[in-house]
Amino acid sequence: MQKLPKVIDRLAEKFAALPGIGPRSAQRLVFYLLHNPESELEDFAAKLVALKKETCLCSICHQISDHDPCSVCEDTERDRKLLCVVEQPLDLLALERSEQYHGLYHVLHGCIDPLNHVSPDELYLADLVKRLDGVEELILATNPTMEGEATAMYITQLIKQKGLADKLKITRIGHGLPIGADIEYADGLTLMRALEGRREV
Amino acid sequence: MQKLPKVIDRLAEKFAALPGIGPRSAQRLVFYLLHNPESELEDFAAKLVALKKETCLCSICHQISDHDPCSVCEDTERDRKLLCVVEQPLDLLALERSEQYHGLYHVLHGCIDPLNHVSPDELYLADLVKRLDGVEELILATNPTMEGEATAMYITQLIKQKGLADKLKITRIGHGLPIGADIEYADGLTLMRALEGRREV
Repeated sequence: MQKLPKVIDRLAEKFAALPGIGPRSAQRLVFYLLHNPESELEDFAAKLVALKKETCLCSICHQISDHDPCSVCEDTERDRKLLCVVEQPLDLLALERSEQYHGLYHVLHGCIDPLNHVSPDELYLADLVKRLDGVEELILATNPTMEGEATAMYITQLIKQKGLADKLKITRIGHGLPIGADIEYADGLTLMRALEGRREV
Repeated sequence: MQKLPKVIDRLAEKFAALPGIGPRSAQRLVFYLLHNPESELEDFAAKLVALKKETCLCSICHQISDHDPCSVCEDTERDRKLLCVVEQPLDLLALERSEQYHGLYHVLHGCIDPLNHVSPDELYLADLVKRLDGVEELILATNPTMEGEATAMYITQLIKQKGLADKLKITRIGHGLPIGADIEYADGLTLMRALEGRREV
């Protein structure tokens, strides 16, 4: 029986290890790449190698950046009395795209998730507590999931335990119906949160 | 507004250029890779670069192989009176997996597809005609699509024009209901072909 050259399987394994790519799609990607010129593959390879070399984590907020401190942390126009906690670097970018927030950020790089063995020690929580000096409002913008809620609750407890809660207003990002949604199809928990978060018009 | 390091966008563009990966998934793949150690990325890059260096096309059947001629073409146990034409290298592997075919192959690397500007000249058709000496049956196993049918028809015409059709039996791979399918849900064209291809029990 005919067998494929080993390098095809080895490259397919690399693709299949990425999230959302199964072994069949991985094989199809490799066959697609076989039709590319060698220079194109070398370019792809160079960018893979450059990924870690040309990026770093901001030592203040832990966002992925190409310089330290990152452009948000070094921006003197930003409101340093506001600090927003997010789970992932992409969450920070989503908030930035909304152009509604002008404070600083803190990226946890995950959330407390006992089922996947992520304990609070593995998040950038110790640095967060050290950054609260001068901050007036801490916005907890972790995801509205079980793990995100638990993380928000853990941070609140942690700050209270350290006796830092008196001078600090801790808020949770608003939950409710997303714009364009249909009440008819909304789940019960979202509706409950939407009712809790109702505001006078 | 915070911007991502350029290398992230550049690598994401590479992933987004692959079939079936959109810009959002490409970005997610890059963020996933950021959590990998640098050695892992270097390994991935090395395998990308090796892909073209360690593979070649068999000069006889045009299958992707690591040596020329490929293991099928150099196998003296194979029935050299049978030649099966397929569109793609993966089609050859699928037929090999069935373990029912012991002849030789010819890989066209595509099918005639005027809408995507693929003309017969871009397929390995000239070599096919030269290989027919000693072949008793030519099995056309292009896909049962418009383009695959057109390619099968083109090959038949080509062989007749060259006056090679007399000594050669040209067959088309059988069409009909796939095993495990439900007649209720089969499309009309498949049922038509299944009726045409009915056999005495």
